[in-house]
Amino acid sequence: MNAYESLQQRSREIAVYNSAASLLSWDQETYMPVKAGAYRAEQLGQLAGLAHRLSTSVEMGDWIKACEDHLPTCADEEETALRAANVREWRRDYDRATKLPTRLVEELARTTSLAREAWAQARKESNFSAFAPWLGKILELVREQAEGWGYSTCAYDALLEGYEPGARAADLAPVFADLQKQLTPLLPRLQKITGAIDPVRLEGNYPISGQQALNRQVAEAMGFDLDAGRIDTAVHPFCTEMGPKDCRLTTRYNERDFTSSLFGVMHEAGHGLYSQGLLSEHFGTPMGTYLSLGIHESQSRLWENQVGRSREFWRHWYPLVCEQFPDLKALPLEEFWLLVNRVKSTHIRVEADEATYNLHIILRFEIEQKLVSGELAVADLPQAWNSRFEELFQIPVPDDARGCLQDTHWALGLIGYFPTYTLGTLNAAQLFHAAVKQVPGLEADLQEAKYTRLLTWLKDKIHRHGRRYSPSELIQRATGEPTCAIYFMDYLKAKYGI
Amino acid sequence: MNAYESLQQRSREIAVYNSAASLLSWDQETYMPVKAGAYRAEQLGQLAGLAHRLSTSVEMGDWIKACEDHLPTCADEEETALRAANVREWRRDYDRATKLPTRLVEELARTTSLAREAWAQARKESNFSAFAPWLGKILELVREQAEGWGYSTCAYDALLEGYEPGARAADLAPVFADLQKQLTPLLPRLQKITGAIDPVRLEGNYPISGQQALNRQVAEAMGFDLDAGRIDTAVHPFCTEMGPKDCRLTTRYNERDFTSSLFGVMHEAGHGLYSQGLLSEHFGTPMGTYLSLGIHESQSRLWENQVGRSREFWRHWYPLVCEQFPDLKALPLEEFWLLVNRVKSTHIRVEADEATYNLHIILRFEIEQKLVSGELAVADLPQAWNSRFEELFQIPVPDDARGCLQDTHWALGLIGYFPTYTLGTLNAAQLFHAAVKQVPGLEADLQEAKYTRLLTWLKDKIHRHGRRYSPSELIQRATGEPTCAIYFMDYLKAKYGI
Repeated sequence: MNAYESLQQRSREIAVYNSAASLLSWDQETYMPVKAGAYRAEQLGQLAGLAHRLSTSVEMGDWIKACEDHLPTCADEEETALRAANVREWRRDYDRATKLPTRLVEELARTTSLAREAWAQARKESNFSAFAPWLGKILELVREQAEGWGYSTCAYDALLEGYEPGARAADLAPVFADLQKQLTPLLPRLQKITGAIDPVRLEGNYPISGQQALNRQVAEAMGFDLDAGRIDTAVHPFCTEMGPKDCRLTTRYNERDFTSSLFGVMHEAGHGLYSQGLLSEHFGTPMGTYLSLGIHESQSRLWENQVGRSREFWRHWYPLVCEQFPDLKALPLEEFWLLVNRVKSTHIRVEADEATYNLHIILRFEIEQKLVSGELAVADLPQAWNSRFEELFQIPVPDDARGCLQDTHWALGLIGYFPTYTLGTLNAAQLFHAAVKQVPGLEADLQEAKYTRLLTWLKDKIHRHGRRYSPSELIQRATGEPTCAIYFMDYLKAKYGI
Repeated sequence: MNAYESLQQRSREIAVYNSAASLLSWDQETYMPVKAGAYRAEQLGQLAGLAHRLSTSVEMGDWIKACEDHLPTCADEEETALRAANVREWRRDYDRATKLPTRLVEELARTTSLAREAWAQARKESNFSAFAPWLGKILELVREQAEGWGYSTCAYDALLEGYEPGARAADLAPVFADLQKQLTPLLPRLQKITGAIDPVRLEGNYPISGQQALNRQVAEAMGFDLDAGRIDTAVHPFCTEMGPKDCRLTTRYNERDFTSSLFGVMHEAGHGLYSQGLLSEHFGTPMGTYLSLGIHESQSRLWENQVGRSREFWRHWYPLVCEQFPDLKALPLEEFWLLVNRVKSTHIRVEADEATYNLHIILRFEIEQKLVSGELAVADLPQAWNSRFEELFQIPVPDDARGCLQDTHWALGLIGYFPTYTLGTLNAAQLFHAAVKQVPGLEADLQEAKYTRLLTWLKDKIHRHGRRYSPSELIQRATGEPTCAIYFMDYLKAKYGI
C-alpha cells in the first residue's frame, strides 16, 4: 500500500468510528432511554478518543508528508486532481488537530462542559454575572487555540477558519456592512406589509400524524431519499449523517401550528440533500465530506426560504394542505403566505424571520470579534450588546436572557460560528438566482412543484464536489462571483414586491 | 496499574465497542433506512474486528497469566472471590478466542454468510440438496473448531460449551430422555383438554396502539424499567443490551391476535429483566455479563410461561384486556386461557406450544450430535429427520421446508445451541417451583399481579451473580438440585389438572 492508499484506508477507518458515534448521538436525541445517558457519554467519549488518536498519529503525518513530496500519479487527470485535493485537506485537518497541546484540548472540553451548565442556569435566572467568569475562561482558551493554529491578521480568523475554511473577518465585514446598510431601511416597510394579518389566524388543529404525512410528502418531493434517510422527532431539529446512504432528520411538532415542523423539515432536508448529494464512493475522505457550515447552511436555507416560503410553492401545496387540515380553509392563500413570511423585530435569534435574522448575526459577529481581541471586556458585554441591539432593531433589550445570554454557542466555545448563518443566507439567494438563470424552464418547474432540475443543479454545482474547492471558490464557480449581499436583497424586494 | 486493573480496563473498553455495535444492530432491525445496509455491515465488521484484536492481544494473555500466578489481594473476601471468578472467565474467553487459527475464523464467517443465503433460498424451494453442500462444509469447519478448542469426550461438547459453559452431551442426554419419556404419554391428554375450543374464537380486532399500551403495562408490572429500556417493532422479536441501563426489546404485531405480541414482549422482557438485574458496576466484565443461553432462556420462559400463561395471571389481566379490546367480551376467561395454552403437534418449532416444543429440541439435539460425529451423513439428514419426527410427534413431515430446513441455526454454524432452549424450559419450571417454596406469600402476590418479590428472588438467585458460578452450580445453589425434568412435568400436570 502506498502512502496515499494508507491515508485513504485510515480516513475511512476513522469515518466508521465517527459514523457509529453519529448513530449513538442521534439515538441519544431520539430513542435512548433516559437512564442510559451516563454510559452513552462514556461510549461517545471513547469513540471520539479513538478517532482522535488515529487522526493525529505520527504515521498519519508521515503519509501526508510523503504524498506532499510525491503524490502517487495516475493516468486520469481528474483522479489526480481529486487526490491532490484530498491530501491538501488531510493536511489541513491534521495540522488543526495536532497543533494544539493535549492539555489545551482537554481543558477546553472540561471547561465548555461545565460552562454549558453554568450558562443554562444563568440564562434561566437572566443572571449574566454567573456566566461571566466562564465566558472569560473560554475566551482565554480560544485565544490560546488561535495562537496554536496561527493566523496572519487577527486571532478571530483562526477560529472562523474552523467553520468556514478560507473566510477572513476582513473580507466578511464589508459584505455584512453592505447587507446591513441595505436591509435596515427596508425593514419598516416589510413589517408593515406583513403585519396586517393577525398571526393567531394561523392557529388551528393540526394532528401530528397529518403533519408527519405532509412533511414526508414535501421532503420526498424535494428529492430527499427516504430509503436512505429518516425523519424522527427530537427536541431540537437537526440533520445527521451516519453513512453514505443514511442521513436522518429530526423535527418537533406543535399541534397548533403545522408550519413550524414543516419549515423545520424543509430546512433539515436541505442539509440532508447536501449529504445525499455527496459522492458515496468518496465517503470517509475529504472529497466525500461537506465543505463548510456556510455552504451547508446555504442548502438548508435555499430549500426552506427560496423554495418553501415562495408564493409558487404555496400555490401548489396550499390546496393539498387545506385538504389535510380543514381548519385552514378559512384562511386565504395570500393571507397564509403573508403570515409565514411575517417580518418583525424580535429579541430571540432562533425565532427571527429570514430578513431580521441577519441583524442578529451582524450583532454577534461584531461583538465576538471584540471579545476575542480584548477590545470589549466580558463585564461590558451586556451593555455593549444592549446598545448595539437597540441601534439595529429599534427596540430595547428587556433582560440578558433575551439578550447576550440567549445562545449556547459561546458557552460551548463556538466562537466564529455565527457568521456562517448569514453566509448561508447570502449564498442561498445567490445560488438560487444563478440556478434560475442557468437552468432553462426552472421557474416553470417550481410553479408545478417539480424540484428535480433544481436539485440536479445543486448536486452538480455544490454537493458532488465535497471539499475539493474552498467555499469562496465554489460559490465563484457556481454563480460567477464571490458571495455578496445583492442577491439576497433582490430576493427580498421581489418577494414583497418593493 | 496492576494486571487485574489492566484487564478490567481493557474488558470495559471492549464492552464499549461491543455495545456500540449492539446499537448499530438494533437500529438495523428497527429504524435503519433500507439502503444503509451495506455500510452498516462495514461498520459492524470493523467494530467486531477491533473488539477481537483487543480481546486476543498478547498483553491480554500476559495480564491473565499474571493474575493466575498472583491475584492482586484485597482485604474484602467477597471482592477477592469476584476477582478470581473474573480472571477464570477472562481465561475462558481468551482461550476460546485465541485457540482458533485466523484462517478458520475467517472461513467460518465467510461460509456461514453465504450459507445463510443458500439456506433461505433452499427453504423457500424446500430443496434440501441445494443446502446440503453448505451444511457439509459447515460441519467440517465446526469439527475443526471443536478440535481447536479441545474436548474430553466428544467434539459436540466443545461446541455446546460455547453456549452453555460446563454442559456436556452425556449429562444432558439422560435428562432429555427422562423428559421425553414422561412427556410423550401426556401429550394426547393435553391435546384433548385444550383442543375443545376453536382457535378462531381468539381472532378479533386488536389495534396496534392498544396492544402497545397493554404490552408496556404488563412489562412495567413485571418490573421492566422502561426508563432504562424500550419496546420497539421488528420482524423478529429480540432483546438486546447496549449499556448498563439500556436494554431494548422488540416484538411484532398481528392485528387479529394480540397474544402473539404480548407473549413475545413477556418473553423478551424476561430476558430484559435478567439484563437489568446484572450489577451495573460490573458492566463490561464477566461479573456483569449474562451466564449462558440456558440461563437467559430460563428467565424469558419463566415470565412468559410460568407467569404469563397461568390462570392467576389472566384472572387479573383478562378483565383489563377486555376493556381494551371489546371483541374479547364474547370469549369467557376459561376458554381464552385454554386457547393460549393449546397443545398441538406442529411441524414448526417456533410455532410450538410449551409442551411439544421440547420434542422439537430433543429431535435436533439427537441429530446434530450425529451430524458432528459423522454417524449421520448430510445426505441422509432429511430421512433421519422425518422418521424420528414421526416417532416423536405421530405426524408425517410434508416437506423439508417444514422439516430439517426450517431453522436458520445450522446455516449460521450454531451447532450445540438448540439444547439451551429446553434447558431454559426445565430451569424455568425448577426456579419457579423453588421461588414459590422459598418466598412466603409469593402465590398470593401472583394472584394479585404483584411481581416484585418474584423479581427480587430472581435477582438475588440468578441475575446479580453474572458469570460467577457455572450454570449448573447456579441452578444447584438456587434450587438445591441440578437441572431435571420433574419440575417442568409437575408444572404441566398441575396446570392442566392431571
